[in-house]
Amino acid sequence: MALNKNPITGMRDITPQEMLIRDYVIDLIKKTYKSFGYTPIETPVMESLGNLLSKQGGDNEKLIFKVLKRGEKLKIDSAKTEEDLADAGLRYDLTVPLVRYYAAHNSELPKPFKALQIGPVFRADRPQKGRFRQFYQCDIDILGEGTKAAETDLLLATSTLLGKLGFEGFVLHINDRRLLKAMAAWCGMEASRFDDAFITWDKMDKIGLDGVVKELRENGFSEESVKAYEELSMTLQRAEMPLKALSELLSADEAAQGYIRDLEAIVASVEQAATVRFEVRFDPTLVRGMSYYTGPIFELELADFGSAAGGGGRYDEMVGKFIGQQVPACGISIGFERLITILMDQGFTIPDQAAKKAYLLEKNLPEEKVLEIRKKAAEERLAGRTVLVTNMIKNKKFQKDQLSSEGYAEIEEIYNR
Amino acid sequence: MALNKNPITGMRDITPQEMLIRDYVIDLIKKTYKSFGYTPIETPVMESLGNLLSKQGGDNEKLIFKVLKRGEKLKIDSAKTEEDLADAGLRYDLTVPLVRYYAAHNSELPKPFKALQIGPVFRADRPQKGRFRQFYQCDIDILGEGTKAAETDLLLATSTLLGKLGFEGFVLHINDRRLLKAMAAWCGMEASRFDDAFITWDKMDKIGLDGVVKELRENGFSEESVKAYEELSMTLQRAEMPLKALSELLSADEAAQGYIRDLEAIVASVEQAATVRFEVRFDPTLVRGMSYYTGPIFELELADFGSAAGGGGRYDEMVGKFIGQQVPACGISIGFERLITILMDQGFTIPDQAAKKAYLLEKNLPEEKVLEIRKKAAEERLAGRTVLVTNMIKNKKFQKDQLSSEGYAEIEEIYNR
Repeated sequence: MALNKNPITGMRDITPQEMLIRDYVIDLIKKTYKSFGYTPIETPVMESLGNLLSKQGGDNEKLIFKVLKRGEKLKIDSAKTEEDLADAGLRYDLTVPLVRYYAAHNSELPKPFKALQIGPVFRADRPQKGRFRQFYQCDIDILGEGTKAAETDLLLATSTLLGKLGFEGFVLHINDRRLLKAMAAWCGMEASRFDDAFITWDKMDKIGLDGVVKELRENGFSEESVKAYEELSMTLQRAEMPLKALSELLSADEAAQGYIRDLEAIVASVEQAATVRFEVRFDPTLVRGMSYYTGPIFELELADFGSAAGGGGRYDEMVGKFIGQQVPACGISIGFERLITILMDQGFTIPDQAAKKAYLLEKNLPEEKVLEIRKKAAEERLAGRTVLVTNMIKNKKFQKDQLSSEGYAEIEEIYNR
Repeated sequence: MALNKNPITGMRDITPQEMLIRDYVIDLIKKTYKSFGYTPIETPVMESLGNLLSKQGGDNEKLIFKVLKRGEKLKIDSAKTEEDLADAGLRYDLTVPLVRYYAAHNSELPKPFKALQIGPVFRADRPQKGRFRQFYQCDIDILGEGTKAAETDLLLATSTLLGKLGFEGFVLHINDRRLLKAMAAWCGMEASRFDDAFITWDKMDKIGLDGVVKELRENGFSEESVKAYEELSMTLQRAEMPLKALSELLSADEAAQGYIRDLEAIVASVEQAATVRFEVRFDPTLVRGMSYYTGPIFELELADFGSAAGGGGRYDEMVGKFIGQQVPACGISIGFERLITILMDQGFTIPDQAAKKAYLLEKNLPEEKVLEIRKKAAEERLAGRTVLVTNMIKNKKFQKDQLSSEGYAEIEEIYNR
């Protein structure tokens, strides 16, 4: 009965060292978001396949771990497809469960509803460095608030959190899905092809403007519209205040002017009410993959660490599609695993910890002596310390070295004399 | 694309109210156990089916949610059995993953290794009141400590935790698997039939001594051994100090005398070093279901609430069976969901919370005014308060009532005047 000691392919165990940091960060996330009035909720890790395959999950829907039907429902002999074998799966994000949760509990929930979720999600991605098939997501969402108050609150709360974690000088990129459409319209592209254009625009940071222009041509966009796009891009790139420049370009577009004013207001509020030094930057090249976004979109860049560490946006139509009643919604997801990796790489230590103490007991100490130590330890714990009472092992040096490396600053050896 | 708004059959969503209590309790659990030197670890919720079906899980092995193979590995046409379709499943407890974790990371772990795990487990039980197919378990285990120091530490830490949660006067039932065997031997039962006897003995609290005696007879135990068992039971029941009485009965059994001395020492240490009022009671009728226990076993009874709220024991042979190297082990699992239910039923409120404050903003307040409020809120949050900034909705009375019920003791309405 040999055990397979490895975790399932693509998944991983969390070491004690990492776990301490994760617990600290989760605690800080909960405290911070709760202090803004976000309410933690939790849903099962399993959802019905019908919900998971609702076309809101994009490519993630191809990566679902499906759970075998049980008992009489499972008919292996006559099964032809995966759907004959499975009617539930592991969630690939926290948004589908949130919307289901809202549908089920709507009437008892505060309006607007500010939700906080932290938990594992599952994607059967090809295993690769730093990417795992089970990982934590951390989302906050506001359901039922249609104004920019939602975006402002989400961004303020998240920047406050990052500040508490010691990050400074990060950049919040912001754009608006409707401005992307206005830009495409300005370029003379057809509405039916907007999404195609956005898929190409999204590659700007990888293939540059030349690459984007080339791909637009290859994808059959008219020479005129491609030229217009090139002009628009270069104007915005050169502009000192791109949002102002865009406003001038789109001066004929009444609706777009409104979106721009809202973005300006969000940027101003977030920067001025923030408790930490960072930048909110209008980024006309920001697209965000998911097609369900309907308004402002954002992405968090930790300047010193290259990659994006979170993102989100407004998705006013998704809840309605599910529950048949329009509910405006807006959310942001922070890249929890990315943050932990960065903190670990930096050698992050948890602040304000009382020094840990260990009592090493000689073998065969009399019971009274052991009891005395246990009572003393209990008192010291009441004062907030971590106090380990443990038997001495043969290799005492090894044991003491290891305890030191675990942060036991004080080690007292107890002998019978 | 209508959504199924219910959670998967047998699983449930956690409401905001319950979630606050769960977060509080999890935090307290982690703080308390950490203060005794337990180290949190985490493993994936999925394990290989080989590990889950290792015969250590008893009946739980019949309740596994199996996860469908993916890609080329899945051959629906030729599949005959569930094992052809699935090679992984959701864990049904935290013990199998702990042992696998230990096998994989042994060389980097402290000796002894004191592990703390809190997380969801899954069992496809028949849905019934108060029992769900996804629920949290909370385990502490000590691996690599063969002496009673382990039992004492587990029980002290757990009683300290229960005290912090406001429970008092609970009872820790304690027995020893080896004493059960000594009792069966004293009755003249054959070693090969000990486990059969224990299954019947375990029913004492449900069917009483008469029922147990009847079932032993029905199961073919000799009249002599059944009579002996009856005598032993009645002697222990009548005894003021059952452990002493058992010691006298088993006076010829050298080994049993040692086990009894150890139990006495554990009981004495736990009671005397404890920081909370409760009872440790030797209970010769305690059996515990799992056959993997090898030494002391315990069960936690919250006297005022009827049912067991946790249990555990020593299982010195399980790790060896898996990893081929003997490692003594001992653990206790507290009934997390049971504790939460009791606390909710009692109307538990989280102690020492700063009063929550809400700002209700009139629609169309000027930006400067909103900004001023946001800055004020940020300052108040720094002082540790929860401060909500939200737009006034049309039904202001409803909104205020709801905020009050969520614990917002102070609600300030902000108008443009």
